[in-house]
Amino acid sequence: MDLYEERFVRDIAVFSGSAHPELAEEVCAHLGVPLSPVRSSRFANDCLEVQLQANCRERDVFLIQPLTAPVQEHLVELLLMCDAARGASAARITVVMPHYSYARSDKKDAPRISIGGRLVADLLVAAGASRVLAMTLHSPQVHGFFSVPVDHLHALRELAEHFRDHDLSRTTVVSPDLGNAKEAAAFARMLGAQVAAGAKQRFADDRVSISSVIGEITDRDVIVLDDEIAKGSTVLELLDRLRELRPRSIRIACTHGLFAAGALQRLSEQPDVLEIVCTNTVPVPDGDRTSKLRILSIAPALAEAVRRIHNGESVSALFDQA
Amino acid sequence: MDLYEERFVRDIAVFSGSAHPELAEEVCAHLGVPLSPVRSSRFANDCLEVQLQANCRERDVFLIQPLTAPVQEHLVELLLMCDAARGASAARITVVMPHYSYARSDKKDAPRISIGGRLVADLLVAAGASRVLAMTLHSPQVHGFFSVPVDHLHALRELAEHFRDHDLSRTTVVSPDLGNAKEAAAFARMLGAQVAAGAKQRFADDRVSISSVIGEITDRDVIVLDDEIAKGSTVLELLDRLRELRPRSIRIACTHGLFAAGALQRLSEQPDVLEIVCTNTVPVPDGDRTSKLRILSIAPALAEAVRRIHNGESVSALFDQA
Amino acid sequence: MDLYEERFVRDIAVFSGSAHPELAEEVCAHLGVPLSPVRSSRFANDCLEVQLQANCRERDVFLIQPLTAPVQEHLVELLLMCDAARGASAARITVVMPHYSYARSDKKDAPRISIGGRLVADLLVAAGASRVLAMTLHSPQVHGFFSVPVDHLHALRELAEHFRDHDLSRTTVVSPDLGNAKEAAAFARMLGAQVAAGAKQRFADDRVSISSVIGEITDRDVIVLDDEIAKGSTVLELLDRLRELRPRSIRIACTHGLFAAGALQRLSEQPDVLEIVCTNTVPVPDGDRTSKLRILSIAPALAEAVRRIHNGESVSALFDQA
Amino acid sequence: MDLYEERFVRDIAVFSGSAHPELAEEVCAHLGVPLSPVRSSRFANDCLEVQLQANCRERDVFLIQPLTAPVQEHLVELLLMCDAARGASAARITVVMPHYSYARSDKKDAPRISIGGRLVADLLVAAGASRVLAMTLHSPQVHGFFSVPVDHLHALRELAEHFRDHDLSRTTVVSPDLGNAKEAAAFARMLGAQVAAGAKQRFADDRVSISSVIGEITDRDVIVLDDEIAKGSTVLELLDRLRELRPRSIRIACTHGLFAAGALQRLSEQPDVLEIVCTNTVPVPDGDRTSKLRILSIAPALAEAVRRIHNGESVSALFDQA
Amino acid sequence: MDLYEERFVRDIAVFSGSAHPELAEEVCAHLGVPLSPVRSSRFANDCLEVQLQANCRERDVFLIQPLTAPVQEHLVELLLMCDAARGASAARITVVMPHYSYARSDKKDAPRISIGGRLVADLLVAAGASRVLAMTLHSPQVHGFFSVPVDHLHALRELAEHFRDHDLSRTTVVSPDLGNAKEAAAFARMLGAQVAAGAKQRFADDRVSISSVIGEITDRDVIVLDDEIAKGSTVLELLDRLRELRPRSIRIACTHGLFAAGALQRLSEQPDVLEIVCTNTVPVPDGDRTSKLRILSIAPALAEAVRRIHNGESVSALFDQA
Amino acid sequence: MDLYEERFVRDIAVFSGSAHPELAEEVCAHLGVPLSPVRSSRFANDCLEVQLQANCRERDVFLIQPLTAPVQEHLVELLLMCDAARGASAARITVVMPHYSYARSDKKDAPRISIGGRLVADLLVAAGASRVLAMTLHSPQVHGFFSVPVDHLHALRELAEHFRDHDLSRTTVVSPDLGNAKEAAAFARMLGAQVAAGAKQRFADDRVSISSVIGEITDRDVIVLDDEIAKGSTVLELLDRLRELRPRSIRIACTHGLFAAGALQRLSEQPDVLEIVCTNTVPVPDGDRTSKLRILSIAPALAEAVRRIHNGESVSALFDQA
Repeated sequence: MDLYEERFVRDIAVFSGSAHPELAEEVCAHLGVPLSPVRSSRFANDCLEVQLQANCRERDVFLIQPLTAPVQEHLVELLLMCDAARGASAARITVVMPHYSYARSDKKDAPRISIGGRLVADLLVAAGASRVLAMTLHSPQVHGFFSVPVDHLHALRELAEHFRDHDLSRTTVVSPDLGNAKEAAAFARMLGAQVAAGAKQRFADDRVSISSVIGEITDRDVIVLDDEIAKGSTVLELLDRLRELRPRSIRIACTHGLFAAGALQRLSEQPDVLEIVCTNTVPVPDGDRTSKLRILSIAPALAEAVRRIHNGESVSALFDQA
Repeated sequence: MDLYEERFVRDIAVFSGSAHPELAEEVCAHLGVPLSPVRSSRFANDCLEVQLQANCRERDVFLIQPLTAPVQEHLVELLLMCDAARGASAARITVVMPHYSYARSDKKDAPRISIGGRLVADLLVAAGASRVLAMTLHSPQVHGFFSVPVDHLHALRELAEHFRDHDLSRTTVVSPDLGNAKEAAAFARMLGAQVAAGAKQRFADDRVSISSVIGEITDRDVIVLDDEIAKGSTVLELLDRLRELRPRSIRIACTHGLFAAGALQRLSEQPDVLEIVCTNTVPVPDGDRTSKLRILSIAPALAEAVRRIHNGESVSALFDQA
Repeated sequence: MDLYEERFVRDIAVFSGSAHPELAEEVCAHLGVPLSPVRSSRFANDCLEVQLQANCRERDVFLIQPLTAPVQEHLVELLLMCDAARGASAARITVVMPHYSYARSDKKDAPRISIGGRLVADLLVAAGASRVLAMTLHSPQVHGFFSVPVDHLHALRELAEHFRDHDLSRTTVVSPDLGNAKEAAAFARMLGAQVAAGAKQRFADDRVSISSVIGEITDRDVIVLDDEIAKGSTVLELLDRLRELRPRSIRIACTHGLFAAGALQRLSEQPDVLEIVCTNTVPVPDGDRTSKLRILSIAPALAEAVRRIHNGESVSALFDQA
Repeated sequence: MDLYEERFVRDIAVFSGSAHPELAEEVCAHLGVPLSPVRSSRFANDCLEVQLQANCRERDVFLIQPLTAPVQEHLVELLLMCDAARGASAARITVVMPHYSYARSDKKDAPRISIGGRLVADLLVAAGASRVLAMTLHSPQVHGFFSVPVDHLHALRELAEHFRDHDLSRTTVVSPDLGNAKEAAAFARMLGAQVAAGAKQRFADDRVSISSVIGEITDRDVIVLDDEIAKGSTVLELLDRLRELRPRSIRIACTHGLFAAGALQRLSEQPDVLEIVCTNTVPVPDGDRTSKLRILSIAPALAEAVRRIHNGESVSALFDQA
Repeated sequence: MDLYEERFVRDIAVFSGSAHPELAEEVCAHLGVPLSPVRSSRFANDCLEVQLQANCRERDVFLIQPLTAPVQEHLVELLLMCDAARGASAARITVVMPHYSYARSDKKDAPRISIGGRLVADLLVAAGASRVLAMTLHSPQVHGFFSVPVDHLHALRELAEHFRDHDLSRTTVVSPDLGNAKEAAAFARMLGAQVAAGAKQRFADDRVSISSVIGEITDRDVIVLDDEIAKGSTVLELLDRLRELRPRSIRIACTHGLFAAGALQRLSEQPDVLEIVCTNTVPVPDGDRTSKLRILSIAPALAEAVRRIHNGESVSALFDQA
Repeated sequence: MDLYEERFVRDIAVFSGSAHPELAEEVCAHLGVPLSPVRSSRFANDCLEVQLQANCRERDVFLIQPLTAPVQEHLVELLLMCDAARGASAARITVVMPHYSYARSDKKDAPRISIGGRLVADLLVAAGASRVLAMTLHSPQVHGFFSVPVDHLHALRELAEHFRDHDLSRTTVVSPDLGNAKEAAAFARMLGAQVAAGAKQRFADDRVSISSVIGEITDRDVIVLDDEIAKGSTVLELLDRLRELRPRSIRIACTHGLFAAGALQRLSEQPDVLEIVCTNTVPVPDGDRTSKLRILSIAPALAEAVRRIHNGESVSALFDQA
């Protein structure tokens, strides 16, 4: 171990909440630093208490917690971790949030409604967070909800790497929603593929459905790309539209594989879906996994971003291909 | 309805979170104002969204939510309600929190530990709360954790009213903990009774147990008074000490009847416990209730406090007997 | 004048910056209150100084200023007006910003770039603004950039009213950008028309162009709808795509008619464009106007919103048709 | 002097207010750094002005000032020192407050009363303090009044060291107040002694007095332990109760020896009090000292805590025996 | 008493700190409202505690306290009063500070020096002050130190009224300092008199002295006007310069008569000084008063300003003659 | 290049707004660091966007921008630069503002007027500025308007250096305004010269004019010294008064040569003015320059101050001669 590494090991402290300790372990393994233990206890009155069990004083503290279900539990635990680190004199507190579920509450589309994406950003800052490392936020404007610096990673490179060994000569990347087609277009460029998108129509009764697909689908190898899949109903609806256009094959890819309410089962049961690819920003329970599922690790990317943040190197430089 | 009432009805708006809608209904009935509906939805990714379904603009908004289990769910819902009311231009947002469970996390008794009582106070203010109405906080210093005005009620009057028709001539009020015996002494004064208290001893292995009881117990009618009963182990331990002193009868009273993990069942099974009295600051599920349980309503007191806050009258004047 | 009106007149104070005094005059005429004068002076060193020339003390102050070119001048003037009103003890300061040009800087699409939409929101709050009344913000997430309440109006009703006397039986509303097609769909619903949209493609060299139009265009009466028209190049490009599909007629509508750099001239010169409709959220110089231009007034809508804000009535209730 | 020390000396700057310069000198001697001079002047209009007379720029500044009488003078001087250090670009400002007298104002036990403990915490932060080093705060909840990190030391080790050479075989540590008996129990554990406590009773006329003592006293060597002794009336009252139980000997120990209004004289005059032990968190005037008084120095402990704060080492690790 | 007055009496609450209760009584008499009592206690440890002994809830609270000697005591008392009023839910807290002594610390004329004028402004806001009513601030820029609205009164009208019955035909108003001669010029205009001023010279050793007087002095009736007189050495030095020019008579006038260190005695002993006039912004002890002293009351002006602030009327309108 | 320099070069990042890139280049040349590029773009809607084109992460960022005309453009650009640097994780952001034009708006000399000097200070902090380096502020109190540390340089040494080779035996330094004569006196001391000043008189109609000059002028070599010259009318008026006293020669010197509206031309046309000396805090267009103008560079002083700020050395130590 040379001098540089010694300094690195001494100054950084990484902790994980209870949402996704496997990911945190993997990030630490890539960093070559230990994952410091956290004691998280629940009192008889259901309140949580957190104790960070390693010295934080004047250290560069990283708290890893995706906001996955149960979201409220994980959010409050994360806020308590921030508070504990601040009270313990951390020099800097970076919240590593591989999945920011509240980012979907990003606009006031009804009167007197909460804007959770902005509120949770303010709560994190109120609890002591001094910066945030996020991944594939639902809309780019969510960045502006934070009053502290945000590093915003994408998983496109990891996803592209996975497909690189396929025959991509007749591939079309399809975005379920034209409003978010920018990511799909970037992904298509990385693969040298075409891009297409579903067009959503909002009806008088406020239902939204995919009415058509723009772009070349017939007899092509389709990769449906979305930022996250929760209930999967949007993707299922898109599959119906795609089938009308007779693609040669269908694969599904996303960054955040939330797979709520049996979504993974339902998608895997589609006979024409060959493969479902996601990353490990959120944990997928072993019991839910199907033979069609492939989970890619974003731990190396997160570890590299943490290393650069700690060393004051540019994070954007790393990911500017995306 | 005279002119005054009309103005009162028009300017106030009361909403309830999902923690204890029955209490909110009861408070509104006493106030003579409607409980305005709240739409609280959960997305597929487990995030909550709240919509206050009545006009808040320039109104005096009251949000009723005790922080009961599941605490994290109810806390985040309450924060979202604050955010929604603020975004909807409420003139003032008063959080009515009949039970503030995080008040127990009020000191840093280990390194790098969270102080939840202060953190949650800061979160409520960050989310838009402009004042708080609380009841029987675990320690009086918790008041100082809030940077906004707090009205702090006690339920002693309601509890005393209940016991007034008993024969109180040989009654001793017992506090499980001498550190919090001030409340018990006040309660004893209200009943014209004596006061006693258990003395806790902290052992080398950090266990705490009640080693003795100070005050007259033998052949007296004992009322054990605590601020809250969660698992009930402290009270059970106190009962053991009391029995050694052969009281004539035992009753148990508390403000917050949390009764976690079968506590109510266990206490009710004590043959020498005649009665268990609590208030409705937190809901007690119908299935858990036993024949020895008596639940007193603090809705009239909360309603009167809300009325006084709304009208700018003194709340402390109302409760200065306690 | 009855008692109510007298109170209304006494408590409100409306001021206009130098960006669009005509609109402010018109709003005040609809409100039936005088537009209070502002002295805005420029020192020899080019600094501005603002004096509000009517009593603000404990009044409900409204400051009307769209952020039009020269944007920086109008922004600083508006900030100085907020500061002057705050220092003069205004009870509440509402910034009426019919056009928020900085809303377009809403994401961090390059490293080390400013997010002007969030920054200017913070500056307004730092200068004393206690609420904002905005119109047709570029993206709905911009709402969340403000830490104070925002009322967000739309001009769709005014635009629809204008087209109501046309023959709408074969009309298609076209959004230049599928990402923002939600507004066009709502507008189409109001007119009982169909909806279509241009699909933008981003090329390797970061140029974006409209590659195709989804929806029925051929032989239909087309209304192109955008939130704002500045240089007009997007619309001109869309016109090229539309012509390939041979529509029966073309009209153009937008809320914010910025018409920079001869855009209005260029659009009017298109022989197949029958009409260009915008509102008066920003001033269009008399000299620039062409015979094809129709300017609709949103002063009645702004005045009604100001009245409702002042009276504490719901603004969203008024505009929920949109 | 090796390289490390040189860096240490260059980066730290320690200043003392006028409350207790002797303690500051002693702390600096233990640290091996000079105590930098402060010019504190009083204008003809009785206002204070402070000039820190050593470079603070990017330094780790420590300001030593217990809040002793005259408290208001010392508080304002301390606030001015914070302000001067902030204006002089200190990298970090740690307020070393060996005695925080306002910590006793920690609850709202009457309507419309100030909570000085919280207010002074807020004032220090408003004046620029970035962290606090405190000693034996009156209640542990006071920690939560600060929005900046607090290191909270205890003097139990110093006090225990003093008694270690006594015959401790029959010793009982007595807390005047059972509510604060936790410290006494910890102290007893350190000495291998028993613990006892006075039980306070609050009467109808709001007087509080010690009604009894729990624990073994008769024929034992008693050490009365309190956090601070001001007027000494509580201790004097406890002595009366203790004498009724005929202890073998009596000693008195406390952290903060305020000794107001002749308290030291009065306590020393008690013939059965063999010794009065306190620390030098606050200065005891030479003229007030009696032959029974022993003052222990907490300067080594403060110096070690300052050294650890400066080096980013754990302070809690040092004191976890307490 | 008509309806209006009743409302006025009910909504306002005026309290006085211990600095100048006579002035507060006089202001209340002019307002026709009672001066509400304050209990200010000092604990054995020299800390202060304040209880406002009248309901503050939703009231318009005014706290009257000039920052006179002992300044630190009066400042902390005032901060505690703000805190108590805020905690008691005051609708608005106006600090009425007839003398702001810390205003003289308004610049950083040495390195690492405190700027007390700005710091105390920040402390007042941190403690809850929502506005300030001040009188004759030392420099007009001090106004900008406050982040809350400030009403700034002058006593020139009261002073002018006093001199109106003198023969003013040969009067010259003299400012000791040309830098602050603006006030003297305004005063001269009010009296129809001439103006003159002393020119200060700063020497190499940083001493400043009055080297000459500009304007007509010889054989004229001189009124020396300053904002405050503390030690009086500047005025005494000016008198020496004036005597060289042989005026016909000399009178001295100021707003704030601090008269520290025997200044009043020394000035009164000057045989050619006929009269010393000040206002009652600060108390002058009965024992210090001399036969040449005349104290004018600014209570009517303060009362009128308080009335206007309470009613939301313009304060500047009242005093624009000055 | 030794090790120290390497570290210096790596950690600092200097950017220039568009107000005065030549000065920034010169400062960087003196520092021996590159001036990092900034992309400042203007959208069709006249909004600005700024991209800092060098890594800022954990760097010590310096943003150089005097607030010269067009002031509003340069101010908003500077605020956007602060925002971009903050979002890019700068460790510290120092605004280097060689000319702070808004400092002249430093008092509320009319009702309901903006105080631009305080507002702009607050805006800079709201945008992320963590410290300010300013030069010759209009009044020393402006320092207190900032809530972040300010280093305040003077250009007197540079100006004195220029005059040192003149015959200074009969020189008088003249300040146009006695209120600001302190600077002139300091300058005179540096040159071993005498000092004089113009006395301004304010007339009933609020005009201010120079009525006389105090000090020895006749037959002396006069240097008129002011902090800034904008329209030059004050200096022109002073020249009239000086000529009445027949000086031997006249020279003019100032720090900030704004020279608005032909001022430089007008001053240069005065036949008895031999020389006009200013510094390059603001750019003087080549076309405006006259043969009498001499521009001194303050880049070395700014560079030295930046170096000292970066290294944590005292800046005041450097300039204490002034």
